[in-house]
Amino acid sequence: MKLSLDPQAINDVLDGRWAEARRTGRSLALDPTTHDDPADDLETARAKTLTGVGMMAETGLPMTGLPPQMGGKNEHATNVAGFEETVTANPSLQIKAGVQFGLFGGAILHLGNSEQHEKWLLDSQAGRLLGSFAMTEIGHGSDVASVATTATYDPKTEEFVIDTPFRAATKEYIGNAARDASAAVVFAQLITAGVNHGVHALFVPVRDDAGDPLPGVTIEDDGYKGGLKGVDNGRLAFDSVRVARTNLLNRYGDVAADGTYSSPIESPGRRFFTMLGTLVQGRVSLDGASVVASKLALDIAVRYGLERKQFTAGDDSTETTLLDYGQHQRRLMPALASVYASAFAHEKLLTSFEEVFSGADDSDENRAVLETRAAAFKADSTWMALDVIQECREACGGAGFMAENRLVGLRADLDVYATFEGDNTVLLQLVAKRLLGDYAKEFAHLDVGGAARYIGTQAAEHTLYRTGLANAGRAISDALTPNLGERRIRSGRLQRTLLETRLDVMVSDVAQALRPATKMSADKAADLFNTHQHELIEMARAYVELEKWKALDEKMREQTDADQAKVFRRLRDTYGLSLIEKHMAWHLMYGRLPMSRARQLNETLGRLCAKLTANALDLVDAFGYGHEHRRATISTGIEAQRQAEAADYYRRARAKQDYPVDEKQLRKAAKQKAKAAAK
Amino acid sequence: MKLSLDPQAINDVLDGRWAEARRTGRSLALDPTTHDDPADDLETARAKTLTGVGMMAETGLPMTGLPPQMGGKNEHATNVAGFEETVTANPSLQIKAGVQFGLFGGAILHLGNSEQHEKWLLDSQAGRLLGSFAMTEIGHGSDVASVATTATYDPKTEEFVIDTPFRAATKEYIGNAARDASAAVVFAQLITAGVNHGVHALFVPVRDDAGDPLPGVTIEDDGYKGGLKGVDNGRLAFDSVRVARTNLLNRYGDVAADGTYSSPIESPGRRFFTMLGTLVQGRVSLDGASVVASKLALDIAVRYGLERKQFTAGDDSTETTLLDYGQHQRRLMPALASVYASAFAHEKLLTSFEEVFSGADDSDENRAVLETRAAAFKADSTWMALDVIQECREACGGAGFMAENRLVGLRADLDVYATFEGDNTVLLQLVAKRLLGDYAKEFAHLDVGGAARYIGTQAAEHTLYRTGLANAGRAISDALTPNLGERRIRSGRLQRTLLETRLDVMVSDVAQALRPATKMSADKAADLFNTHQHELIEMARAYVELEKWKALDEKMREQTDADQAKVFRRLRDTYGLSLIEKHMAWHLMYGRLPMSRARQLNETLGRLCAKLTANALDLVDAFGYGHEHRRATISTGIEAQRQAEAADYYRRARAKQDYPVDEKQLRKAAKQKAKAAAK
Repeated sequence: MKLSLDPQAINDVLDGRWAEARRTGRSLALDPTTHDDPADDLETARAKTLTGVGMMAETGLPMTGLPPQMGGKNEHATNVAGFEETVTANPSLQIKAGVQFGLFGGAILHLGNSEQHEKWLLDSQAGRLLGSFAMTEIGHGSDVASVATTATYDPKTEEFVIDTPFRAATKEYIGNAARDASAAVVFAQLITAGVNHGVHALFVPVRDDAGDPLPGVTIEDDGYKGGLKGVDNGRLAFDSVRVARTNLLNRYGDVAADGTYSSPIESPGRRFFTMLGTLVQGRVSLDGASVVASKLALDIAVRYGLERKQFTAGDDSTETTLLDYGQHQRRLMPALASVYASAFAHEKLLTSFEEVFSGADDSDENRAVLETRAAAFKADSTWMALDVIQECREACGGAGFMAENRLVGLRADLDVYATFEGDNTVLLQLVAKRLLGDYAKEFAHLDVGGAARYIGTQAAEHTLYRTGLANAGRAISDALTPNLGERRIRSGRLQRTLLETRLDVMVSDVAQALRPATKMSADKAADLFNTHQHELIEMARAYVELEKWKALDEKMREQTDADQAKVFRRLRDTYGLSLIEKHMAWHLMYGRLPMSRARQLNETLGRLCAKLTANALDLVDAFGYGHEHRRATISTGIEAQRQAEAADYYRRARAKQDYPVDEKQLRKAAKQKAKAAAK
Repeated sequence: MKLSLDPQAINDVLDGRWAEARRTGRSLALDPTTHDDPADDLETARAKTLTGVGMMAETGLPMTGLPPQMGGKNEHATNVAGFEETVTANPSLQIKAGVQFGLFGGAILHLGNSEQHEKWLLDSQAGRLLGSFAMTEIGHGSDVASVATTATYDPKTEEFVIDTPFRAATKEYIGNAARDASAAVVFAQLITAGVNHGVHALFVPVRDDAGDPLPGVTIEDDGYKGGLKGVDNGRLAFDSVRVARTNLLNRYGDVAADGTYSSPIESPGRRFFTMLGTLVQGRVSLDGASVVASKLALDIAVRYGLERKQFTAGDDSTETTLLDYGQHQRRLMPALASVYASAFAHEKLLTSFEEVFSGADDSDENRAVLETRAAAFKADSTWMALDVIQECREACGGAGFMAENRLVGLRADLDVYATFEGDNTVLLQLVAKRLLGDYAKEFAHLDVGGAARYIGTQAAEHTLYRTGLANAGRAISDALTPNLGERRIRSGRLQRTLLETRLDVMVSDVAQALRPATKMSADKAADLFNTHQHELIEMARAYVELEKWKALDEKMREQTDADQAKVFRRLRDTYGLSLIEKHMAWHLMYGRLPMSRARQLNETLGRLCAKLTANALDLVDAFGYGHEHRRATISTGIEAQRQAEAADYYRRARAKQDYPVDEKQLRKAAKQKAKAAAK
């Protein structure tokens, strides 16, 4: 059952194209300063994380995205890959560095002009100019187009006046704001000459050199959160704060000295979504960070599961470890498979991100596919991480609940990944909208008031392109051959057919149900969408699952080493069959899977998990993490040591013959004696 | 759609038989000392929790379980119900009070003699004698029979010598140990005259009056955990610690001065499980505490969902709140239904607990049913709480992640409830074993070495009785009528039939598969069990789900007010159909549900959730909690206030005509003008 694998070779596949950046990123975990400590108070944790941000600047990774003339490489995925790996040091570091270099720096890079780059970008990417990304407001979380902060142009002084008109317009959950930022990129409704030109971004200083809020700026501290203690989230409010006209990041919209507005993109909606699109990096990096956190958790739980014995007698004759148990395998092996699938899917996402942002292929179509995938993968992977970490936590029992074993901290930190950079349910509706648009043109331009809101405003004025879904809307009958029942349930073709068919049917069913919306009043259309919101979200998840399965399937086909290819096949089958089991009701309800095959699935999955378990250690070794990344007491071999000590004690005691007789044995012996005597 | 409900009347049903104790328990939340504060360091949190334990003692609740001659009432469920409600103050308080009064005090009460009661019990229940319950060891979590700590009788001094023979035998995760306990009930292998009589409990002082560990006692601090910061968990190790012979809690096993062992229960295994059985209270109370925590989370999330608007324009014409969205309803309403079901199931569990421990009906059969249900409900409810709280956390978006909104803290604290007092997967295997024993006698006495271990050692020598499952093993065909397809999917009879049939078929299928184990070698039997471990656990969950559904169904039938009965029916149907949807694949695979009905289920559930939403506020008001229990900023009405403020701002701005024109409107107007001019 056990295959002969080389973990380093698998690690090379996993670390992939950006292996060097990944290894640089995870090297930050070597310095204890970057580590989370539950005993740290808020200020200590924040100060340590800031030090980590400085260390990140020193690696030079934040500079790679800059144009060559500024010392950069015009490489965009490199720093993302590097940042993701800092989750091994501390998720707070990944987020704080992400805010500083990816969001604050990224906004200046993508929305600013070259003068602004000179003025702020080098300082930002070197960690000298600390900044916030002030988009979200209390009153508007996911609905960014509705932010209420205003930037009103005053032609007399050639300044913008920034205002928070009411409490709900306060910028909220802003990273770096509570403690460190001296400036913020603020998203506000740009008003000039009595006209509101929609949301634009401005560079706004918020603190003076002494670290105190500038006049008109109110800063509040969000205080304790469910996790991410090292990130100083806070609230920003503005009262007639004036900034120079040239502080408007003006790539997609500018105001002349006299107050005249101009923009290279005529449609205000399209302009807004183009601006937002440049910020897709955040979602891409959360997808990758979720994979890293899941790897760490599995690395810890698998090692412990291979050592820890349960329900063994006092002697050392029984060797049953946790991972020998069928249920334990069923908890951890599908998780392992989904992490492998997600890692390879993420690599494809990064590749597409690099293509778009380096300019290698920045067609509108490629950009749209990137945005759809980033939204879809971010939603699925952040939820996966929460599930995987929790499964690992419980699989480690009471030890899993101890802070020193890392799992509870990782889960607490990752919790909000499901919410920020776009709430997962909102993102999945955006994906659903794209899938519908691919399926039939009338959905592509469906933006009737309320209805559009229900499936994500962002889609409203966006030109839609194919999502990369190969055959959305093809005839279902093509996908099935009459002799399906005779195929082995593990057949890759069967898995693909089932996953693809399910998505196809879901899309055409939902499209059918929603078609009347195109001819309805906005209110009624909204109601109709609302009735089908659950199916829209399920449909979007079916899309991600298929994409991830395909990524793992492709990677499997690339393997040349026989055993390595075989273990990849086991991973693919475990992932694929887990998905089919999860949606079994659907496959049965739509007659896609014969009952006889369906009933085999549980047993087949059980056998696959047992096979994967034989190489479980190789598969976590392949993550490339050492103790300095895991830092969990239970994954250090301490458990095996304790057991050896206990076994040794019993052995010696028995050898000395001073081991007390067990009462049960005594009774048994007495009974046998009595029996013998009776005879 | 909206029914006319009286939340107070529903609260009376929910608080039920132990309403008074519940209200006393939750009154502890009125004192801020009992509240969790994320800014507290470990010592502060622990000191506050200890103060709360003192307040609990002052209510007199811990005394109710004592015999009348000691000032008690021989009421056993009263204090459990009261303790559960202290989750509204702080789960740390529930756990620390549970350790002190339920485990430490409970062990003295149930395992000790009347002299020992006089000596220690009054002080314990008054909070004057603080103690630990030292059962779990590092090396043996769930497998309590294998603890390695020894208590060796020395007839010369008439003392027991307590020893931790190796590191893995250290008592671990022991509540009250790190800081407060001056004594501990220690579970150890009792050895006298060279014979090991198995696990017994002894009263062992661990700290002197100054609070320092006594000679031979080593105490370590577990430090930070994933939650429960106010509970001082620690490790206890013993090196030749001597206690008097009379410190053995000797109700089920005693040692005479000369070292002669005696016990009222002959079989050592049966004796051990009788001792353990007296401690079922812990599982009962975790079931109830999970219900309380889930109620709190829903109370917070529903209130916020009814106020918070999403994707509304700047004007106040659209009134869509989060709970108007179909998906939001699907997240919270099934959770609400399962909490109602669990609350009523818990009340039945408490009733059975009271019967057994008051002596009203302490037959072996009733005791066995209690133990099975306690294990089953504890496992299902603790997992439910984690799911419900997380769903609520995500449903509140970024605000849900802020510590001030309570949800993240509740989840962190409840996390380990899935592990302690018996790991959920181990407990469910115990339940499975009982179900098999009910089904066929050969399983009742199946204790072949390894095989028994796989399904929970506890079952090994325990006489088995019917679990209360009405018809396990009856002919499946009886349960189905030919005209099933014509019934409405909401029919209660259909729900019951589906849930019962599934359980019946699972039990008989697994029994069929495992029958060969009774004639196999221990090793082979163990392998066979392992292959079916997953199904055993699924089968046990099917049992709990049916029991909870029945409890809600019964309570529904008791309602006399028409609207109240109607809302209970909606809750029952939502719970029942959610379960059927969850296991739809099974129902289809076994031909229990026609495809046509199955396809209606999603839509029916959606409609039910919408209907429940109409009374969502009543249903959370009925929990009987005020702000002093919820203490979440977002559930105070602050969101509605902020929105009113924003709406007011826009209204005034428009009235003054100084509201800037929207660029989009401007373009639209220009286009229309151009069109008109062209004509």
